[in-house]
Amino acid sequence: MNIQCPLPIKTEEIIKLGHGSGGEMTQRLLTNYIQPIFNNSWVAQADDSATLPWAADQLVFTTDSFVISPLFFPGGNIGELAVYGTVNDLAMAGAEPKFLSCSLILEEGLPLKTLKRVLLSMASAAKTTGVSLVTGDTKVVERGKGDGIYINTSGVGVLLSNQPTDARQIQTGDLILLSGDVGRHGISVMACREGLEFESSLTSDCAPLNGAVAKLLRAGVEIHCLRDLTRGGLATALVELAESSCRGFVLEESSIPLSETVRGACEILGLDPLYVANEGRFVAFVPERFSNLAISILRNTEVGASCEYIGRVDGEARPQVILRNNLGCECLLQRLPGEQLPRIC
Amino acid sequence: MNIQCPLPIKTEEIIKLGHGSGGEMTQRLLTNYIQPIFNNSWVAQADDSATLPWAADQLVFTTDSFVISPLFFPGGNIGELAVYGTVNDLAMAGAEPKFLSCSLILEEGLPLKTLKRVLLSMASAAKTTGVSLVTGDTKVVERGKGDGIYINTSGVGVLLSNQPTDARQIQTGDLILLSGDVGRHGISVMACREGLEFESSLTSDCAPLNGAVAKLLRAGVEIHCLRDLTRGGLATALVELAESSCRGFVLEESSIPLSETVRGACEILGLDPLYVANEGRFVAFVPERFSNLAISILRNTEVGASCEYIGRVDGEARPQVILRNNLGCECLLQRLPGEQLPRIC
Repeated sequence: MNIQCPLPIKTEEIIKLGHGSGGEMTQRLLTNYIQPIFNNSWVAQADDSATLPWAADQLVFTTDSFVISPLFFPGGNIGELAVYGTVNDLAMAGAEPKFLSCSLILEEGLPLKTLKRVLLSMASAAKTTGVSLVTGDTKVVERGKGDGIYINTSGVGVLLSNQPTDARQIQTGDLILLSGDVGRHGISVMACREGLEFESSLTSDCAPLNGAVAKLLRAGVEIHCLRDLTRGGLATALVELAESSCRGFVLEESSIPLSETVRGACEILGLDPLYVANEGRFVAFVPERFSNLAISILRNTEVGASCEYIGRVDGEARPQVILRNNLGCECLLQRLPGEQLPRIC
Repeated sequence: MNIQCPLPIKTEEIIKLGHGSGGEMTQRLLTNYIQPIFNNSWVAQADDSATLPWAADQLVFTTDSFVISPLFFPGGNIGELAVYGTVNDLAMAGAEPKFLSCSLILEEGLPLKTLKRVLLSMASAAKTTGVSLVTGDTKVVERGKGDGIYINTSGVGVLLSNQPTDARQIQTGDLILLSGDVGRHGISVMACREGLEFESSLTSDCAPLNGAVAKLLRAGVEIHCLRDLTRGGLATALVELAESSCRGFVLEESSIPLSETVRGACEILGLDPLYVANEGRFVAFVPERFSNLAISILRNTEVGASCEYIGRVDGEARPQVILRNNLGCECLLQRLPGEQLPRIC
């Protein structure tokens, strides 16, 4: 796997596609603009959701806008992605997702039958995940000012345990459990967009993660941190967590599950699968004493059937992610520097 | 004021700008597509927010996407509109707004200084209204697939009283209190868009309503229903409430506050001010015994200084809104039929 070098920092005077990549440029936009301006402790934590004090319960609140192109891709569409994406952000905070909102920005000229297909997928995805879509909004923009459908879903959930699951809880010695093979969502969407065909069929990993997380937590597995892998892929997610936790991670390349189809497609396309987007994969940081229990529970779920431990938290290292290959060579992972596949979610 | 006739119902095969008008076409999209598909009691109520069971407290949850063009208009910009709009939806449910999310869809090429101005306005508006912007998301779309900035804000709040404030609580004999003059937001935006100039300066009424609502509720005013007037204007809001409450309303045209500038602009532009959008106005349905208290409190607030009683709920009438003019002539108000001013919020 080749490691991409970060772009030199340039004067960023206008928004570029890379600001939406989930990688280095997104991070700069966040730290230079959004965090200092919306200055509060929740925004400073830079998680994908906010855990809020709310009477007897802790309320978890999150939001995501979905601008994926095309609207329909192998293994899913923007509607289920919008439900699963927000459900997954709540699950990663250790919460049980309860209620979702749905706000639509529709482009003039969109066929109503397309809208109906997407809404039906959302309703079905909500049923699958046990959430209710309870409030919404619809706006319409002129032709050429949108692209069919953009969907925002926001969600609220209630914490499943009193033990927070975020980067600040990661401890030296924790094992890093990856729920399945990486890169399927990004490669499926790119293949669909470019009209590529592979020998074996490839579908997105787009899936809800709340059921698997609830099983782990309810079985008493101590989980220090959960993170779903979306834009920027496994590598970007782990670099962010290493920096937030001020700890170093060491990964074994050979342990990272990867399908032959994704491997082959990445070679042809010149992409690094560790940076390709996923929509139904996560990493869990688990203390060693819970490692057998965690993997046996996760392997019994649909989304975690091919899960593997891929590395561990190394107390000696600086806040960085080291990837070790079969020959013992080590390289340092970086955030995704620019944009790889725009509008992947 | 001339009354617009509803358009005949046509086969609606594609999304048209009118589907985003907040009027008749939006209503058809809701009842034919969204409500039957997202089939639950909250969506069926078709309020602007959902009041949810949540441990000890009732949780109010709402969402809105903002696509206003231009981004900056006399009296405000998309940033403060996005904060006030969601704060107002929570206030109209009788809730104290607590936490907001902010999800951005940015168009490639947007100047970062424009983004910064908008974010600063959001932060300032959040401070004014006492809410915290706690979670967010940023997506970027290619040039020509957006229009500078679209913002979704979702919000959660906690009910201020156990007494619900929605259309189902409206009772015969209730007085209808309008918080101020109508039509300023729509006319300001249109003037800005078309480069029109008026003799006296006109600014949007864009403002937060939570402070005024909290004062009314904390003073013990019994309020049966609150509704902010946005897309579709005063007329569309009242027609919706008449239908939801199964009651008839009678309005006195001469009581409806209207600035001379808006009146003149509407005459020139051929618009009915009762259908022009507002962003800082609301109606409250108040039992007669609280009417003096309510108006005296509201007149002492910035947003309600020019409030007036404009009509009452008439138990005899069918679910409809009758507008009576100075000569005693009566006409029936309808929802806004198509689109009047696209992308007004």
